[in-house]
Amino acid sequence: MLTIKRLSIDDAKILIEGARNRATEIGIPMCIAITDESGVLIAFERMDGGKVTSTTIAQDKAFTAAGARKATHEYAAAAQPGMVAFGIDSECGGRLSIVAGGLPVSVDGDVVGGIGVSSGTPPQDQDCAQAGIDHFLKAIGK
Amino acid sequence: MLTIKRLSIDDAKILIEGARNRATEIGIPMCIAITDESGVLIAFERMDGGKVTSTTIAQDKAFTAAGARKATHEYAAAAQPGMVAFGIDSECGGRLSIVAGGLPVSVDGDVVGGIGVSSGTPPQDQDCAQAGIDHFLKAIGK
Amino acid sequence: MLTIKRLSIDDAKILIEGARNRATEIGIPMCIAITDESGVLIAFERMDGGKVTSTTIAQDKAFTAAGARKATHEYAAAAQPGMVAFGIDSECGGRLSIVAGGLPVSVDGDVVGGIGVSSGTPPQDQDCAQAGIDHFLKAIGK
Amino acid sequence: MLTIKRLSIDDAKILIEGARNRATEIGIPMCIAITDESGVLIAFERMDGGKVTSTTIAQDKAFTAAGARKATHEYAAAAQPGMVAFGIDSECGGRLSIVAGGLPVSVDGDVVGGIGVSSGTPPQDQDCAQAGIDHFLKAIGK
Repeated sequence: MLTIKRLSIDDAKILIEGARNRATEIGIPMCIAITDESGVLIAFERMDGGKVTSTTIAQDKAFTAAGARKATHEYAAAAQPGMVAFGIDSECGGRLSIVAGGLPVSVDGDVVGGIGVSSGTPPQDQDCAQAGIDHFLKAIGK
Repeated sequence: MLTIKRLSIDDAKILIEGARNRATEIGIPMCIAITDESGVLIAFERMDGGKVTSTTIAQDKAFTAAGARKATHEYAAAAQPGMVAFGIDSECGGRLSIVAGGLPVSVDGDVVGGIGVSSGTPPQDQDCAQAGIDHFLKAIGK
Repeated sequence: MLTIKRLSIDDAKILIEGARNRATEIGIPMCIAITDESGVLIAFERMDGGKVTSTTIAQDKAFTAAGARKATHEYAAAAQPGMVAFGIDSECGGRLSIVAGGLPVSVDGDVVGGIGVSSGTPPQDQDCAQAGIDHFLKAIGK
Repeated sequence: MLTIKRLSIDDAKILIEGARNRATEIGIPMCIAITDESGVLIAFERMDGGKVTSTTIAQDKAFTAAGARKATHEYAAAAQPGMVAFGIDSECGGRLSIVAGGLPVSVDGDVVGGIGVSSGTPPQDQDCAQAGIDHFLKAIGK
């Protein structure tokens, strides 16, 4: 039997709060998704003005980051033409996202969930996802 | 040009709060999804212990209720064998839900969104969805 | 509560008329799709000779342009290898189109819908989509 | 943070062994799928002669049993016409199985995974799934 650590709904809300705060600072209404370590949705928020397409993309970024234990921007690098992961973005029914803005959430070395942000440029999305993680780790004293 | 009224993220959070409060009262951790009037997700919360399958089902119930402007339990009645809507549950890629727990959110006669709840029995799901709407309408003075 | 502006069916018909007129001029029978601001289909027309595959592609282009508030040819540029949105075309179940021919329809700064055209070369598709918008904006005096 | 118990690959192999032994006894080559508590596949075996369609069905049964923490034959009962869960079988992209042969795997009151069996009659499938669980619980001394 395995023992797994997983984000709770309260953890997820802290992650969203951190990402939302940063999104507000930079003036971009975002879609923000939090999944557990298996990529299953825990919480989601579309700020007023967040994009329709981003409701799915944010979830897919979080799913990918949690499920593959890898930031989506790392996949972006590895999935360029000629690179080893080229074409991986069509996997998992197209849900495997290689666009920046998805980050695994790790605590004490374990991936316990994922955060995905979408509606801005991919670097803006990644910035807000990181802000969510920073806010969360500070809140739990890590 | 048409003018459409739509739930905001703040409205969505009030709806979730009302459903969550009722779920807590009856002791069933629920998945709660709020969509806009077009069935696009605004907010989602999986209470600790909510079912994995219900992360999708709650969203589909909200999508159906908003998109069809009809409670999913009304579809349940109309989709029985021999009834006019029999088989409609496989429509929309299977997202059209005919299981109780999805309700349109109406304000002043306009459907402005949908709420979907899943993880309990369908009557419990519907009860919590209604509690979300009651809480919301009270909060906005309707 | 939010207030949203959205294309009516009469608006959608004017958009199609403009795109169709241009398609007739250049002698390419097109598939033309109009969605609302949420990417939901309002009107569709396959001119005699329009391609079967384009019935889907035109809808996906309109969905993307409206839902992401961005022209699909802008995505084409941003999604090249090495660019920030590389790989985004597999998102939204593969519906996120990065092929020219999808344009958001904006009125007074608000995206109120999307138009997607397909069956010609992507530049031809884009040309017809733009003709639809020009025709529409002229018709409503903008 | 939550702490979750989950089947290991060694646990999954014991579950498959139990189901396979029973399948051999009754002379029906089965497809046997084991998922974790989130419905994600851990192990799968198609005995020589197992049905092609059952490779998917067995996985969906295990996914459903784990994700909904409910045996698929219980859903079969609850999803009959006129019952509260009628129509739920189209949910989760059609993956929610209401055909007997999917059982949650519980240890000390926690659902730690799911087993799904397919290729025989549904009662035979359920029988083999139960044999897998019995074999597993005996092996771990529960």
